[in-house]
Amino acid sequence: MSLLARTIEGITPADPEFRDRARARILTLCMPPWALGRLLDLAVDLAGMTRSLAPPVARRCVVVMAADHGVTAEGVSAFPREVTVEMVRNLVAGGAGVNVLGRQAGARVLVVDVGVAGDLSDLRGAASFQSRPVAHGTANMACGPAMRREQAIQAVEAGLHVAAELADETDVFATGEMGIGNTTPSSAIIAALCAVDVSEAAGRGTGIDDVRLRHKTAVIRRALDVNQPDPGDPIDVLAKVGGFEIGAIAGLILGAAAQRKPVLVDGLISTAGALLAHRLCPHAAEYMIASHRSDEPGHGPALAALGKRPLLDLGLRLGEGTGAALAMPLVEAAARILTEMASFDDAQVSKGNL
Amino acid sequence: MSLLARTIEGITPADPEFRDRARARILTLCMPPWALGRLLDLAVDLAGMTRSLAPPVARRCVVVMAADHGVTAEGVSAFPREVTVEMVRNLVAGGAGVNVLGRQAGARVLVVDVGVAGDLSDLRGAASFQSRPVAHGTANMACGPAMRREQAIQAVEAGLHVAAELADETDVFATGEMGIGNTTPSSAIIAALCAVDVSEAAGRGTGIDDVRLRHKTAVIRRALDVNQPDPGDPIDVLAKVGGFEIGAIAGLILGAAAQRKPVLVDGLISTAGALLAHRLCPHAAEYMIASHRSDEPGHGPALAALGKRPLLDLGLRLGEGTGAALAMPLVEAAARILTEMASFDDAQVSKGNL
Repeated sequence: MSLLARTIEGITPADPEFRDRARARILTLCMPPWALGRLLDLAVDLAGMTRSLAPPVARRCVVVMAADHGVTAEGVSAFPREVTVEMVRNLVAGGAGVNVLGRQAGARVLVVDVGVAGDLSDLRGAASFQSRPVAHGTANMACGPAMRREQAIQAVEAGLHVAAELADETDVFATGEMGIGNTTPSSAIIAALCAVDVSEAAGRGTGIDDVRLRHKTAVIRRALDVNQPDPGDPIDVLAKVGGFEIGAIAGLILGAAAQRKPVLVDGLISTAGALLAHRLCPHAAEYMIASHRSDEPGHGPALAALGKRPLLDLGLRLGEGTGAALAMPLVEAAARILTEMASFDDAQVSKGNL
Repeated sequence: MSLLARTIEGITPADPEFRDRARARILTLCMPPWALGRLLDLAVDLAGMTRSLAPPVARRCVVVMAADHGVTAEGVSAFPREVTVEMVRNLVAGGAGVNVLGRQAGARVLVVDVGVAGDLSDLRGAASFQSRPVAHGTANMACGPAMRREQAIQAVEAGLHVAAELADETDVFATGEMGIGNTTPSSAIIAALCAVDVSEAAGRGTGIDDVRLRHKTAVIRRALDVNQPDPGDPIDVLAKVGGFEIGAIAGLILGAAAQRKPVLVDGLISTAGALLAHRLCPHAAEYMIASHRSDEPGHGPALAALGKRPLLDLGLRLGEGTGAALAMPLVEAAARILTEMASFDDAQVSKGNL
């Protein structure tokens, strides 16, 4: 059996008994019923994932999956493809947005090359870098499949390997990515899997104008027409209109779910990966936490398909894992409320007539 | 000149030059233009408040103003009035929600008795407690003014004194409160100052049912009818339908603004205090950060009147300052982005054609 098949088989639903026990504990805490709203829903989710009333959340890692995209040849992005390599160097040096927010959140930031089109051999050995390339960028999906089926599986398994390696030092995973052009395959995946029109799934990415957005939308339509991905087969969708980093994100999420650990999902691209993970194994969604609502229009239908409501809504559209890092303190807060807050009895506070 | 008048005179607008400089600096940072959305807006706000491109945010204090309300005699709350005293003890002992979230946020939590109806003399000397009572609870506003005009000024000045005392050890202030029944005067203040109907300003507070909500709404209407507060005179509104802790929150906010420091405003009750501060000194609003959108219906019109969009929307309705504590990491994140993130030049990343 393949690593992917074994991992999927090992994913179990979140534990309903621990969810109930967390709910019961919260109702004893010294506040009006459910007065911390969605923070308490999150605490229940964490208890169900981790099978604990004191969910461990101290050791955190944002994994930034990096890869390039052949479809950039169509002129779908405002930035040249070289920026992927340049940004990987910036990420490894610690200067990018997710580095700043990760430091604040007490999270390690690990950058993984799963298919960058450039020479990164000088980065080997850096503690915050791993090299697991499937190929030097995908093929142009507007002309044919982005990758072969076995490469799609290899991309997902790269994510599984990263999750396995981090297992002993990580309580909370978070997804991030870097790959110029990667909103284009993400929107294609969302259009294919969520049955929404491409016009509702495509957005401005790094900030393209109306003319280029129309062009990008047409390119995505062409990619779907040319490739005819099978929405019932997530690996087929990934192979035909996906990207290596999107597959690796799906793998990281499946790996976290198999470890029964929460995984914070960042914005549009990460959520496209989360959709693939969900279609490969529906129970994996029970370990996902939607960190924020991106400005990208395709994010809404993707979150809805996962049944997720994001924690933050701050108009972010940077990616990298910045939204996931920014939501980490809310995960810690939910866990702390469950463990540190006094009950009515502890605090000797009178109950109301509720 | 009174302390209040002197403080108001000392409040200047946020600095437009530092706002412009922060904007210019952000546009050099290595990301698509304004790709961190409202986090960057917040960074600009912080620069304008503090006159700095490295806004200090390390030293934080949540001030929990506590007081009682005569209007509880009308049966407007689900909890008995004694709970205010019990919760003050819980807050000083460190077991309440805001203590948990404050610890996580690296914020001191200071509880100030500005008018609790009970004996708290045993708490004197506790590092996290101050005693500045105006009286032992307000009078019942459904029958006449909640307090005398000079008591209203004294309540606001209590907040000013706290802000002044904390000045040397605080970069970021946050407001919180404890006072059984205090959504009732808060909704009355909002109805009076925002010209919305009482039915749009009154909510379930700690969780009352439909019958009691109708009763609470009628009590607020009666208080406004009996007292006829003058919406052009915020001290009159506070005196007639307010509370000591609400006045003290207004004072704390004015004090923070006079020190040119950000102040995170919590939910409904804190925002009622913020409205009073704004009416006393419109420029004070430039130092306020709306931390979250409460479940209370009156919070929306109050935030709109202040021109504020809150950072979080998590269905919180606990008060205490919990929402403000929960938003502290976002303030730190905004400041860190401004100071720690690499520019395109630093990182040697190519710019796009935007």
